[in-house]
Amino acid sequence: MPASGSVSEFSIIQRYFNKGSSHPSTSLGIGDDCALMSIPDGYQLAITTDTMVENVHFFADADPELLGHKLLAVNLSDLASMGAKPVSVTLALTLPNVDENWLAAFSKGFFGLAARHNIDLIGGDTTSGPLTLTLQAFGFLPKGQALKRSAAKVGDAVFVTGVLGDAGLGLKICQGYLSVKPDAPLARFNRPDPQVDAGQALLDIANACIDISDGLASDLGHILEQSGVGVCIDWESLPLSDSVTAYICATQDWAMPLVAGDDYELCFTVSPEKIDMINIPCTQIGVIETLPGLRINKSGSVQTFKAKGYEHFSE
Amino acid sequence: MPASGSVSEFSIIQRYFNKGSSHPSTSLGIGDDCALMSIPDGYQLAITTDTMVENVHFFADADPELLGHKLLAVNLSDLASMGAKPVSVTLALTLPNVDENWLAAFSKGFFGLAARHNIDLIGGDTTSGPLTLTLQAFGFLPKGQALKRSAAKVGDAVFVTGVLGDAGLGLKICQGYLSVKPDAPLARFNRPDPQVDAGQALLDIANACIDISDGLASDLGHILEQSGVGVCIDWESLPLSDSVTAYICATQDWAMPLVAGDDYELCFTVSPEKIDMINIPCTQIGVIETLPGLRINKSGSVQTFKAKGYEHFSE
Repeated sequence: MPASGSVSEFSIIQRYFNKGSSHPSTSLGIGDDCALMSIPDGYQLAITTDTMVENVHFFADADPELLGHKLLAVNLSDLASMGAKPVSVTLALTLPNVDENWLAAFSKGFFGLAARHNIDLIGGDTTSGPLTLTLQAFGFLPKGQALKRSAAKVGDAVFVTGVLGDAGLGLKICQGYLSVKPDAPLARFNRPDPQVDAGQALLDIANACIDISDGLASDLGHILEQSGVGVCIDWESLPLSDSVTAYICATQDWAMPLVAGDDYELCFTVSPEKIDMINIPCTQIGVIETLPGLRINKSGSVQTFKAKGYEHFSE
Repeated sequence: MPASGSVSEFSIIQRYFNKGSSHPSTSLGIGDDCALMSIPDGYQLAITTDTMVENVHFFADADPELLGHKLLAVNLSDLASMGAKPVSVTLALTLPNVDENWLAAFSKGFFGLAARHNIDLIGGDTTSGPLTLTLQAFGFLPKGQALKRSAAKVGDAVFVTGVLGDAGLGLKICQGYLSVKPDAPLARFNRPDPQVDAGQALLDIANACIDISDGLASDLGHILEQSGVGVCIDWESLPLSDSVTAYICATQDWAMPLVAGDDYELCFTVSPEKIDMINIPCTQIGVIETLPGLRINKSGSVQTFKAKGYEHFSE
């Protein structure tokens, strides 16, 4: 946090962002050179950061309330994927100008989700410049229990929470590619619901876990690579909403639920003997195998599937 | 950290930013959805974040090696001002394109300073967009010992480390305002040296402390405001370099060392009975008083001084 000497930056923070602190881990919140956090004995701190840039991660006319929600949601999703319980965040906000309506709506979306998870905003920085939003989120984890990408084992069952591809369909609706415009996928794209409780419920049960931000194939690919294993996914087992099923019937774009991003569901692997311990709604979609790579079994035909996530710096 | 599916972002991180982790607090560094940190018993975590934006905080043609140094330095300075020992950082880097020369130089400046303080880079996010650099820094503090802005007491002596105004003079040199161009002030502006050791040496000695990023008057003003006190500064006692003294003689701009930013020295207050315990080089510049506000005693004449820090959103 800078030693801000300007009334206006101070006013922005006071009006829209300084909501006080209530989490027991927050020893000192907004207002000094640093925030101070106390971590309970027996716990580790999980730290994640995600940036959203205008015209890269969101459209210039994006609803600021949805942006405030989404910026927090994508970071909470990263905490969820390790099994961490969120406690607080800091916000680095770069704004082209002071638009009080924008700030009020952004703050509403942000603190609406923060309140649901009892999260404090404990610090940050406010600067002028092209609209860029960086959030840093902190969560607690019992020591040594984090769900890592590298921990999948051959024979593990692979599960996903929720349904796949809805947010991808929502993006296509936003982009005007579809004539049919069901509400649910649009809401899934605009207002993702991070699987915070599910992540914590998987501690001591799952081996590897990741959140599906970049598409199932790409994100599960990280688990495979870092664990040195492969997988065969049964396409028919993929959990799909009626909207996505209808989209695939109409377009034959069967790969969409494998490659579309922004679902913010969890994908995790579980040893066979622990499957009965799972106490969250989820769907098994495949099994971890020795042979590296990601394969899809579709109608009995197995094919290798290459996924590519969003590339920020493609030519 | 996002689940990056792109080879190129991955390459940037691997080539220029993934230097492994060596600090004992880093349980898991770059490469998963979150980093994991272990905090020793009896310690709190100090957290700070600062953003630097092209054409706002630095010139478009700024030397990337100096930028890498400065981004880390300004955050370490915030940790120093609370008395915290730095341990690790995360970096959110928004880049307009992949310029390998720029990245190599930025990384060199960044890790050069990081190595001096044994700091791990444990995570971050790399996105495309207008050049924006956000660093988040973490430090350890013995529980309850943080040096806060709000802790100055009437009767405290006010000290500063180092000399004042050199970085301000350096900025004027960069901007081409001066015909004489001494080297030292330019170096102070370009490559600030955060007072990390001094901050830790003040634990149990200083009451309030702040780093001088925005100018002495503005930053000391935060201590006064948050502590509900005032100060009288003896202008003749201000520690000035020969270059700044020469500048003031030539221009009569005596307020410059009070208002110029970027010095990254520490300003702190100490109860009279603890002054003998101070074991760092520093200069007493005034005494905390009951009457609110900041006053300057210059040649026997006392005047109230109003400081205004840099205003990001001025009309």
